[in-house]
Parts: sequence; C-alpha cells; structure tokens
Amino acid sequence: MMFSEYDVIVVGAGHAGCEAAHAASTMGSKVLLITMNMNTIAQMSCNPAMGGVAKGQIVREIDALGGLSGIISDKSMIQFRMLNRSKGPAMWSPRTQNDRMRFSEEWRLALERTPNLDFWQEMVKEILVEDGRTVGVRTNLGIEIRSKSVVLTNGTFLNGKIHIGEKSFGGGRAAENAATGITEQLISLGLEAGRMKTGTPPRIDGRSLDYSKMEEQPGDENPGKFSYSDTQPLQKQASCWITYTNDTVHDELKKGFEKSPMFQGRIKGLGPRYCPSIEDKINRFAERERHQIFVEPEGWNTVEIYVNGFSTSLPEDVQYRALTKIPGFEKAKMFRPGYAIEYDFFPPTQLNLSLETQLIQNLYFAGQINGTTGYEEAACQGLMAGINAHNKAHGKEPFVLKRSEAYIGVLIDDLVNKGTQEPYRMFTSRAEYRILLRQDNADIRLTELGHQLGLASDDRLKSVLDKKQDVQTLLQQLKKYKVDPADVNESLTGFNTSGISEKVNIAHLLKRPQLTMKEVKTFGQDVSDLLDQYTIEVQEQAEIIIKYENYIEREQQLAEKIGSLEDYKIKNDFDYDRVKALSLEAREKLKKIKPETLGQATRISGVSPSDISVLTIYLGK
Amino acid sequence: MMFSEYDVIVVGAGHAGCEAAHAASTMGSKVLLITMNMNTIAQMSCNPAMGGVAKGQIVREIDALGGLSGIISDKSMIQFRMLNRSKGPAMWSPRTQNDRMRFSEEWRLALERTPNLDFWQEMVKEILVEDGRTVGVRTNLGIEIRSKSVVLTNGTFLNGKIHIGEKSFGGGRAAENAATGITEQLISLGLEAGRMKTGTPPRIDGRSLDYSKMEEQPGDENPGKFSYSDTQPLQKQASCWITYTNDTVHDELKKGFEKSPMFQGRIKGLGPRYCPSIEDKINRFAERERHQIFVEPEGWNTVEIYVNGFSTSLPEDVQYRALTKIPGFEKAKMFRPGYAIEYDFFPPTQLNLSLETQLIQNLYFAGQINGTTGYEEAACQGLMAGINAHNKAHGKEPFVLKRSEAYIGVLIDDLVNKGTQEPYRMFTSRAEYRILLRQDNADIRLTELGHQLGLASDDRLKSVLDKKQDVQTLLQQLKKYKVDPADVNESLTGFNTSGISEKVNIAHLLKRPQLTMKEVKTFGQDVSDLLDQYTIEVQEQAEIIIKYENYIEREQQLAEKIGSLEDYKIKNDFDYDRVKALSLEAREKLKKIKPETLGQATRISGVSPSDISVLTIYLGK
Repeated sequence: MMFSEYDVIVVGAGHAGCEAAHAASTMGSKVLLITMNMNTIAQMSCNPAMGGVAKGQIVREIDALGGLSGIISDKSMIQFRMLNRSKGPAMWSPRTQNDRMRFSEEWRLALERTPNLDFWQEMVKEILVEDGRTVGVRTNLGIEIRSKSVVLTNGTFLNGKIHIGEKSFGGGRAAENAATGITEQLISLGLEAGRMKTGTPPRIDGRSLDYSKMEEQPGDENPGKFSYSDTQPLQKQASCWITYTNDTVHDELKKGFEKSPMFQGRIKGLGPRYCPSIEDKINRFAERERHQIFVEPEGWNTVEIYVNGFSTSLPEDVQYRALTKIPGFEKAKMFRPGYAIEYDFFPPTQLNLSLETQLIQNLYFAGQINGTTGYEEAACQGLMAGINAHNKAHGKEPFVLKRSEAYIGVLIDDLVNKGTQEPYRMFTSRAEYRILLRQDNADIRLTELGHQLGLASDDRLKSVLDKKQDVQTLLQQLKKYKVDPADVNESLTGFNTSGISEKVNIAHLLKRPQLTMKEVKTFGQDVSDLLDQYTIEVQEQAEIIIKYENYIEREQQLAEKIGSLEDYKIKNDFDYDRVKALSLEAREKLKKIKPETLGQATRISGVSPSDISVLTIYLGK
Repeated sequence: MMFSEYDVIVVGAGHAGCEAAHAASTMGSKVLLITMNMNTIAQMSCNPAMGGVAKGQIVREIDALGGLSGIISDKSMIQFRMLNRSKGPAMWSPRTQNDRMRFSEEWRLALERTPNLDFWQEMVKEILVEDGRTVGVRTNLGIEIRSKSVVLTNGTFLNGKIHIGEKSFGGGRAAENAATGITEQLISLGLEAGRMKTGTPPRIDGRSLDYSKMEEQPGDENPGKFSYSDTQPLQKQASCWITYTNDTVHDELKKGFEKSPMFQGRIKGLGPRYCPSIEDKINRFAERERHQIFVEPEGWNTVEIYVNGFSTSLPEDVQYRALTKIPGFEKAKMFRPGYAIEYDFFPPTQLNLSLETQLIQNLYFAGQINGTTGYEEAACQGLMAGINAHNKAHGKEPFVLKRSEAYIGVLIDDLVNKGTQEPYRMFTSRAEYRILLRQDNADIRLTELGHQLGLASDDRLKSVLDKKQDVQTLLQQLKKYKVDPADVNESLTGFNTSGISEKVNIAHLLKRPQLTMKEVKTFGQDVSDLLDQYTIEVQEQAEIIIKYENYIEREQQLAEKIGSLEDYKIKNDFDYDRVKALSLEAREKLKKIKPETLGQATRISGVSPSDISVLTIYLGK
C-alpha cells in the first residue's frame, strides 16, 4: 500500500488547506495534504497583502489559536500598517504587504517541518463515501487513499472558468488547471452547488511606472506585526503608491463594456460586492469622478506590481488603454491581464458549525468552497475545519467559537445560518461585540482555547498568562496610584484637559480622551517607572480596558444574556412541525438549517424574535 | 497598441528561453519573453543540479560568453564538485547541486533587472509568417505581437503527454498545461516534426529516509564555482547520499513491466539512451545486479529529495513498492510519482548553424525543440539563438562557434549536420579537440568573442586579458627559471621521481607526472615567491599548458588544417547535381542539409572523405 490510512486528508494547499493541514497534524493527526502542484503552495493569487479592516483581527485570532498565517505573514512582510489608528481600538486593524514568493516559500517550508504531515501532488477526483460518511478520496490516477476525515479547500478550482473580455477558458488560477469531478459527485450525493465569481487586476512591470506622479504610502513609523510569538517587526519597509482613475480612464473602460463578460451575462456567478471590479465601480457609482488605485509591490526584489482597485475582466486591450490613462501609468507595461474567474461553491447552510457537511459525516469544507472571499476568511475556516476534522477523527467534540469570542465565530455562524448570496467578506459591522473582539486581545481571548486543543504551544500559553497577570496587576496599580493636583495640573492644562481639584487615581484620568499612557508618563518619574515595568502591549491593554470599560461591560453582559440561549442545544431530529405557532417561513428555514442551538436559531434570516419566543417556551426555557 | 514591435520575441522561459532573452536584450534588442506562467520561470523540472561531465564545460562556456547560467548556478548552489579530478584536465568537469527554488527565483530576478526585456504571461498559439519570414506571434487570447525575430524554446510542452503506467494525460510538466497549436502550424508550413520522450523520477520526503544506510557524498573540500565573474564559492555545503538498487528492487519493478507505457508501445517517442529509466536499465543490462542511486536534496531548507537514477514511468504503486526495497528507503514517502513525457521536436537538420530555421527566416529554435536533453544543452542553444536572433534583427552576420572553439560549437554542428535520433546529450567524446575545450580555459577561448558581441562586460574582458597576460608571463618565467641539482634532487626523490644531473628549468620539470605546482613550490623560497605572484587559476593554466603542450599543439594543428576547409563557404544555391562524381547518398544529404561550408559538409553522415575530395576539387580548392 502506498498510503496507510490517514486521520485527516486535506485537499488543496491554499490559505485554508495550509492552515487545516498544519492544525490537524500539530494536534496529533496523521495528515495528508494533497495539492495539484507542490510548487504553488500558499499562492497569494490576488493581492500580496494580509489583514486589513476586520481581516487583520482574524489573522491575529488565527495566530492566538496556534495557526500559522500570522507568523508566515510576519516573516514575508515588506510593509506593516495599523489601519484606523485614529478610530477606537475596535477598529484598529493590522495589515501587511507581503513578498509573494517569500510567503509561499515560508508556508511550504513550515509545512515541511510539521510532524505527522505528508504531501501528495495530484488532483482529487472523488470523495470516498460509505454509509453517509467519508472514508477518503480517489485521485486522478485512480489511487484510493483512506482517512477518517476529509477537508475540502478547493478555492476557485472547482470547474474554474477564466474570463477575459469575450474569451473564456478552463482554469483554477492564471496558468493553472481547473479541478473537475468533485462538484458533480457531491451533487449526485445530494449536496447543492452554486456558482460564484471573483476577479483580479492586471500585473504590471514596475520599471514602466512614473512614481513621481503618485503619492507615496510608506509603512508605519513604528511598525508592528501580526503574531503574538517572537517574530520580528521590520527594520526597513517598502512603500506602496496611490494614484487615481479619471474620466478618461472611465471612458476607455466603457468602450469595452459591450465585450464585458459580466455585463453581457456570460458570467453567471455572483461577484464580491465589496471588492468590485473597476467596471462595476464605474457602473454602480457613475457619479464618482475617480477611484483610488493602490500600487503595491509584489515583493522586496521583484519589479512586479499589483494594481489594487483595478480588478477587471474587460478585454486585455481595453484594460491596457485604460491603464495608460492613469497618472503614472502612461508607459505601463503589463505582465498579464486581469481576469474574472467563475467557480463552484456549496452554499454553506449545508454545514454544521464545525464546518462538517450535514449530509456527509466527517467531510469538512473550508474557504471559497463555502462562498467566502479573502485569504484571511479562508485561512480561519481552514484552521477550524482542520481542528474539527482532527477532533472528529479522534472521537472528540466539535470546537466552535461563539460570536462573542471571535470574528471567526461570527464568520462561521453567519455562513452556516444565513448563508451567502455573494462572496462573503468580513467587516467589523458584522460583529455585534466588536469592542470585545479587538486585534489587541485576540491572544487573551483565544490562546487558552488553542492550548487546550493541543494547537497553541506551552510557550504561547505561558506568555498569555503572564500578560493577563501583568494587565491585572497594572490595572490595580493604576486604580490605586493617585496623583496630586499640584503635581499634574500644569501638565493636564498643557494636554488641553481640565485640572483636578483633589487627588485622583491614574485610571480615572486615563478615561479622558486627551490622555493616553504617553501623556500619563509625564506625570512624574514614579509614574514613568511604574509603567516602564510593563511591556507596551500590557500598557496598551490596560489603557484600552480603562478607557472602554463601560462599552466592554455592556457587550459582555449582552453576550452572556444571549449566551444562555446560545448554549441551549436543539436536538438534530427535533420536529418543528409539532410547534404549530411557528411562522411558516421560520418552520421551513429551521427544518432546512437544523440549528444546533437556540442561539443559532436566532440568527437565521426569516426566523423572527416571536418565533424564537415560541420555540424557547416550547423547549421549556 | 498593447505592444509595439519588438526586435526579438522569445517563447518559453526555461533554461533556453532565459538565456536567449537575456542575451538578446543585453546586446541591445528590445525583447519580449512570453511564458505560460511567470511563477515557473527557469524551473529545474528534472534534477536539481547543473554541470557534470561535458555539461560543466558548457556552463563555463556560457559564462565566458556573458550568459547567466553560471552565475545563477553559483548563487543557488548547495554543493560543488569537480568531477574527474583524477583524470586529465580535459575531463575535469564542474558540477553543482542547486536549490531549486533559489535557482528559479535568481533567474527571474536577474531577468527582471535586464534592461530592454519585457514579459508577457500567456500561451503562444501561432507564429506569424509573411513572405517566408516570421514577423511575430499570435497568442491564445488572439493578440498579435510583432517582432523582427522569434526564438522558440518550448521544451517538453509542445503537445506534451505524460505517462504513468497505463494512464496518460496532457501536460507540459507535472501539474502544468501542454502547449498546443505551434506544431500543427509549423508542419503546415512545411517543417518536419517528430516525437521524443524523456522522464523523471519520483520525489521523496527526505524525512522518511534512513541516511545511515547510505554513503555520504559531500562536496569538494575546496569548492569551486562556475562563473569567471565575482560570484562566491560556498562556505558550507549540503551532502548528497548514495545507495543502490538490488535484485528485490528489480523484481518489484519487473512486476510492472506489463503496464509499462514504454515496453507496451504506448510511448512512440525516442528516449535518452544515456539517461535511461530504471526499467530500461534493468531491461538492457539484465546482468547488472545493482544500479547506483544518488539521493539529492532539492535545496537548503526543503525536505524534498530527487532520486537520481530512478527515472520511471511504471505505475505509481510499482514505483513505490520498488523504492521501499532500496536500502534507506524502507519507509519512503513519495511526494509525487515519476513519469515519462512525450513531446514534439523538430529534427535539427532543418536549421542553419545559427539555429535559424532554413524554411522560415528569422525564426530560431533552441533547446528540447531541437531534440536535445539537458539543462546545459538547452541553455547554450538559447544563448546562441538569442545572439543570432539579435544579430539578424540588426542586419548583422550570424555568430557561429567552431568545433575547435567550444562544446557549444560541437553541439550545434552535430545537431544541424548529423541530426539526432534520440534526445541529444553532450559527452566529451563528441569533441575532437577536447584538450582544447577545457573547463579551465573557456574564458580565454570565448570571452573576447562574447565582448565583441556586446554580451560579455568590459570587466570580464579586462579580467581575461589580464589572465592571459599573466599566464604568458608565468610561462616565460618558468621556462627561464632554472633549478640546481643540489637544491632539488632530495625533494625530487621524495616525490618518487629521478634527480637531475644539471640545471633544468621549472617548465621542464613540470612535465613530469609526479610534479605539480604544489611540489614545485617546495623547491625553495624563490620559486614559491615567484608562483605566489599569480592567482591559483593562472598557475593552474600554466601548469596545464606545460604538461599537455604536445597534445594541445597537435590538436591546434589539426583544427587549423580542418579549419581551412571549415571556412570555405558553399553557396546556398549550389547545384550538387552538377558534381557527377558525388555518391548518390552524399548528393541527397548535401542537397537536403545544404552545408554552409566544406567543413560542415565533412561531418554529414553519409558524406565520405572521397565525396569531400571530389567536392573540394570541384569548388576549386
């Protein structure tokens, strides 16, 4: 036998597949990662960047749980920026530009160093199913490989079809083959499939651009990083550049509309509304005179440029002519045109919250196959599917994160309960508890859970426990340490805030919007010495907790209240037809989605609060 | 227009295409390199190594002319060995193990830094031909790109078909698409095409091997390098390992013979006789009890292993079972199976010595499309095709190397005049003048030519001229400097060679096989000081010239004698039918191949020395 039985087979080695394979094998599963091409593991097939608004929070959550996306991003970054610094801490979002080649290589080498993890380069054609349970896969060569669980992370490859203007051809990514067979088989087994669409901009030779006509966008002055582990921030950073489209650009693009595969109906799949193509933007926001273009280097040394904001499937000559009307792009040379790609997905309402399919036991889906878009969304699903595929293979309970615990919880809960009509992208607005789900506290929220799973290392756990302890100690000290009006009033006035009339503790003062740890440090050597005992991270944590105490408490209470419903389990075979008072729509939805808990039931679209009341009463709450 | 007219378009970015694109653009041509995938530029699709017997000489010749293969190999090497050190200097052959990912990345970055060189990622479907001359290409998207010359370097991609056991599927390399369209079009234009075959072994997870059962093969103690430029030798090297097949391995392999695509006739193309598959070796050398297996790491950090000597297209399970019977491979895990690949080539007798097709002007072929095998063979053809495509585009004369000037000359002359029935590989035995064509003097032989072409830099020229001057000076000094019997006879006896009876110059002594510069240095402080004024390379050069003076002179005389014929041009429209005394076979061959010179005519198989005499007389020599 070429292959003995595995605990977990992961199909696909993009962001989802890599996290899944790493998680399951680190937890102790015997894992096989099957990819069509070992040279293209962890390709950044779209923009060379990780994180961003809400997505940066997800990367830190993955890192806190013991996943690798944060570490790999740190090792391959060429620029770091904390977005939304001027807003509240719930909105702060780390983002890196990455060296595309380094990112892919670091992932591959990290996976090669992971014990229990084997590799096989081939296309999977079929899932082996026996008695409603998957028992492995069959490859293109006809090899049967057995496993206890299977995780599918096929990205855009399932029957992938690339469109450029009026031309279209099969492909999973530019220059890569599509994957065939799996969709048809899963449909024959009873799963429902749909079609989605996404796109990517042209790639440009950076030597042909005139940067003097663009605005430079450098990295942060004091760059951070994603991982809570000991990765290093950058000493030197690469810059991005900003330029804008204009009427002439739009006019050139419009000339191609009659050949647009989107506007002419040749693309059936739904595209990502929040990451639209440039032709879509012009069409939908006709009043806008210009759109921003981010000119992003693809790495430290390569001249290749990613034209963020210019995703398009118009004919390549239209792309070219429009590009050359953008300031700085007058002499642009293209490496390859942008394109749209259609691919199969499976509406995620067919999943359990563990990402296991309801129909086929031990079969997990993660990433774009579930109708999401984005590296981070894919990676976190891969992580969760890998964890749960391992747990299932070892007879353990599913690991599910609550909406109040992580963006990852919000994402999966949204997918499973609401489904999605278009490629699902994370936003901070999707989270009810976003003051709880900050990027700065993902380790405090999740590392203990990751450690219990056997995923986050002992070192990580120790460092989080130390940090928690330090934060608590510092909070107590700040509440206890009082400053004297005579000592600080001059300073306070200098910081444009009123003086104090009696001794006040520092915690109290820190609630003022004008004051941060930086200002507080100037209150005297004692205060400065006190703070200097703690890391920047601990100081920041304490400051946020003090400043946002009321918001945090309110959200925590809400979360606990809903949590009591949340945790109330509904049996899988519960007969909704017996609950006559349910609305017709609610009954149909509940029968279809089979929520695992009352909490999950509350979030199904079409299930009203009154339906929930009825159900709660019926269930004896 | 997306593309203005180019001087040279290069199709394909393997070893041939990369050298062609770099050469033409460095010489000043406006060049477009078209590749199906910019992420797979300069893939080492077979073994992760450069050079070796005769091939190492070619790499140094490429380097001396100003090509990049030597520099890239040096930058990505993980081990260096000078093969055949125990034999004469004509046989010394440098060889590197390389980091596959680094090799590819260094090539890509080097090309990105090359001025005048543009990139386009797509498949070429058709050559544009007007009035018997190529004027550019048409791509899969239907884009017409005009150019003065076109170089085709399609490797194994033209209608590539991969075989593993009884299964076969289209593909240009593992996991990559085949290229279609070009062969059919060229046949329709009158070119003749054939089918060849090559193969590659399985790739293995190095973590699954037991190296204690193998012999270590470390790099050289004082490692060298390929390039005459300022690349650096390695400080630290990686080892390879040696193990052997045995009867059990052979028995396991034989079980798959009935499913072998080679033995069952499904593969029509001819394979490389000198780089046979393991099943071929067992079949042809049934008496051999074992075959050597070189276990080669694919890079510094990756665990991937290349199993040199185990190329196979037997079914994957047969490959696996046989592998596990090799000492050290008992628990081997495969990343992917070995396979055979069939692809189209064009018999190279259809080319001029410039590598331009005789039928279509300004169209050049280089690499496997000409029926060769090997990275080095491909790279040097790419270099020469790039040079000539540039020259033609600028109305300059073709650049052709003589058989007495370079292995490159031997290779192209063999291809054009003899053609090849199987993938052509270079050997030292193919060269008549191999004491002239040494790896140590490629710079002296070729850098001045490379500089005249505008390819080798001024720095390179200066360094060669300095070296030549130093060698001459040292030679004179060694001939002048006499040692006294009283001073050296004790040493000589110690070196197992007889003493001298009168004063003798050092050059004379150096002819003795027992003595090298190392021994000579012990003849006294003066001698040692004299030698120390020169680099190791200069000393080595002088030593070889002294030791092999007679051989070198003899070959030079022979080369000059043949050269006088060599340079005698035959007009393209020369009417061989008028030379009645020619044999029928010779006349047919001469009419078909249309040799450019008498020298070329001498090497056409079927043209006898008496035919040459007849022809020489007729032509008035």
